Amino acid sequence: MRATVLHAPRDIRLDDVPAPELQEDTDAIVRVVASCICGSDLWPYRGIKEVTSPVRIGHEFVGIVEQVGATVSTLSPGDFVIAPFTFSDNVCLLCQRGVHTSCVNGGFWGAKDKQGHAVDGGQGELVRVPWADGTLVVTPSQPSEALVRQLLTLSDVFPTGHHAAVSAGVTAGSTVVVVGDGAVGLSAVLAAKRLGAGHIVAMSRHEDRQRIALEFGADQVVEERGKDGAAVVREILDGIGADFVLECVGTADSMKQAMLSARPGGRIGYVGVPHDVELNVPAMFARNIGLAGGVAPVRSYIEELLPEVLAGTVTPGSVFDLTLPLDRVADGYRAMDERTAIKTMLTI
Amino acid sequence: MRATVLHAPRDIRLDDVPAPELQEDTDAIVRVVASCICGSDLWPYRGIKEVTSPVRIGHEFVGIVEQVGATVSTLSPGDFVIAPFTFSDNVCLLCQRGVHTSCVNGGFWGAKDKQGHAVDGGQGELVRVPWADGTLVVTPSQPSEALVRQLLTLSDVFPTGHHAAVSAGVTAGSTVVVVGDGAVGLSAVLAAKRLGAGHIVAMSRHEDRQRIALEFGADQVVEERGKDGAAVVREILDGIGADFVLECVGTADSMKQAMLSARPGGRIGYVGVPHDVELNVPAMFARNIGLAGGVAPVRSYIEELLPEVLAGTVTPGSVFDLTLPLDRVADGYRAMDERTAIKTMLTI
Repeated sequence: MRATVLHAPRDIRLDDVPAPELQEDTDAIVRVVASCICGSDLWPYRGIKEVTSPVRIGHEFVGIVEQVGATVSTLSPGDFVIAPFTFSDNVCLLCQRGVHTSCVNGGFWGAKDKQGHAVDGGQGELVRVPWADGTLVVTPSQPSEALVRQLLTLSDVFPTGHHAAVSAGVTAGSTVVVVGDGAVGLSAVLAAKRLGAGHIVAMSRHEDRQRIALEFGADQVVEERGKDGAAVVREILDGIGADFVLECVGTADSMKQAMLSARPGGRIGYVGVPHDVELNVPAMFARNIGLAGGVAPVRSYIEELLPEVLAGTVTPGSVFDLTLPLDRVADGYRAMDERTAIKTMLTI
Repeated sequence: MRATVLHAPRDIRLDDVPAPELQEDTDAIVRVVASCICGSDLWPYRGIKEVTSPVRIGHEFVGIVEQVGATVSTLSPGDFVIAPFTFSDNVCLLCQRGVHTSCVNGGFWGAKDKQGHAVDGGQGELVRVPWADGTLVVTPSQPSEALVRQLLTLSDVFPTGHHAAVSAGVTAGSTVVVVGDGAVGLSAVLAAKRLGAGHIVAMSRHEDRQRIALEFGADQVVEERGKDGAAVVREILDGIGADFVLECVGTADSMKQAMLSARPGGRIGYVGVPHDVELNVPAMFARNIGLAGGVAPVRSYIEELLPEVLAGTVTPGSVFDLTLPLDRVADGYRAMDERTAIKTMLTI
C-alpha cells in the first residue's frame, strides 16, 4: 500500500510500504477514505522536531473498516469510522475520566503500540488500529462526500479547538479571545460560539482566515499583536480583557499574547503544542490567571460533537481550503508550510 | 495608638503611632478586636522579601466600627465587622467578577490607597478602612469571644484555602491532595471537605498539624515527600493520582510535589505565594494538568462562608494554636518562624 513517509526535513514522500495486518485480537484494519495534514505535522517537516530516520506520519483520518480482530465487538467490516488522533481502550481509569490521551493502553499513530508493534500513520491507504473498539467511532450511515470533510474534522482539529474552550471553561455570555488563526484557532472560535460565548474576538492578520473566523462566530477581528493587540482587546472587552483566552499556537509570543489578553481572574485554555513557552508565575498569581489544556483527548469529545456535525448545525469543515489526492501529499505540506493553505485535506 | 511595625528582618515591634483619621468620605475607622499573623508575613520578617524601611504589617483583622465617612451607608459605629485581606470597592467590573484583589480602587493593608493616603496594617489597635462599604462585612450581631476566633479566619486563611479548592474546581466525590500543612493548607482540607471531596489526602510530617487535618476532614496523611510521596499518593488514589491538588506553600518543591501528585487531566489550585516556582509546560501539556489560583479574592467568599461559621457547622478557628495579647506580637512571630505555632491570634 502507499503511505506518507517523512524522510528528512521537507523530504516527504508517498512510499510503497507493506500493508498492515492484524496483530492483536483487539485490532482492526481501516481503509482510509480521507486524511489531512495538521499544523503539528509541520514541526518535524520543518526539522524543528528532529527527524533521525524515516517516519510514518499523519494522525487524522476517517475510513471504512476492512477487517476486525477476533474480540472486536462493536465494529464490522464496511462501517464508516472516525479515528481520533490517539488510540485508546476507552475503558481504563483515565479514559473513564476523559483523558484518553493518557490511556494506559494508548499511543500515537506512526509510533508503536504497548505490545511493540509498529502503528501506521494516518496519511496512507490502510491503518492498523489498536484497541479498535475503544478507539473508533462509527457513524450511523455512510456519509456523503460533502459530509466526509465535516466528519474528518472530528479526528482532531475541531475537538482540539473544543478542548481549548472546555479547558478554559467558556461559559454562556462570556468574553473570549482566540490567539492563533490556524485551523485549530478557527475551530476554537466555532467551539466557543457553540458553548454560547457572548463576545468572541479573533486575533488574525490574514483576510482568508478572518473570513472563516467571522463565519464561525467571531464578533470582531483584531490585527494588532503584542501589547498593542492586548490594548485593543481590553478596549473592546469592557476595558479589562477577556474572561477566557484560547491559545492555539504554542509559541512564547502567543502565550504572552494570551496572558496579556486575559482579564484578572481569567482562564487560558491552551492547545498549541508548547515550544519554548515560559510562564511568569508571580504575574499569573497576582492576577489570578488560570491555565489549563494540553494534548486534546479527542476521543472523549467525538460522541458529543458528532450529532451536530451530522445534522449540519456546525460545519467545521470550512477549515479545509485545499483538497488534494494522496499522491500530492508533498504539495499539501508545502502549501501549509508556506501558509498558502490553512489546512489540507487528502482524499485517498 | 499602638501598631505593629517591622523595622528590619526579625526586628518587629509594637510602636506608638498616630491614630488614623478619616481621609475620604468612603472611609471608616475600625477598632481592632482580634488580628493574626499570616505565613506570608514571615517572608518580610525573615528578610526573604526585602525590608528597606519600617513598615506597618498585618492584613487580617476583625473589629468594631468606630467612625464612618460621610457617604458610608451600610455601616454604623458599633457594628462588628470582618475585614478581608485586601480592601476593595465591591462594585467595579473586576469586583463584580469576584476578583476583588484586582479591584480598580483596591489595595493592601499597610500600603497606600489609590488616593495616596497611607493605610494602616491590621496588627494594631485602629485601622482606617478605605472603601468601607465595599470592604467590610458586618455580622448580624456581636459575636462571643469563642466565635471571634472563628470569624477571624474569614479575614484570610479560611477563604484562601477555599480559593485553592474553588480554583482547582473540587467537585463532590473527587480525590484531593493538599500540599502544605500550614494554616492555609489545613484550611484547604476543610474547604475541600465542605465542597464534598470524596477522599482527601493531607501531606504532613507534623503530628499537631496532622491532627487538625484529620479533624478538618482529611481521610489520610502522607508523610513522605517528593517522588516517594507522589508514589504513595498514587497508590492510595486508584493508582493514578489526585483529581485535584491544592498547593498551599509556594516553593519550587511544593509545586513539583503538586504536579507529581495530580493525575493526568488533574487540576492544581495554588494559593502559596510563589517563590522561584517554575513550571514544566511541556510536561503539563502532555498530561493535561491545569493550574489556577493566585492571591485569594477573600471578599468574594465571605458572604458564602459566614453563615456556616456563625452556625458552627465549620470551625476553621482550630488553626489558631497560639493566642497572645498584641503587646506580645514579637513572640507570636517568633513562634511561627520557629514553627512552634501553626498560626498566632492576637487579641487587642
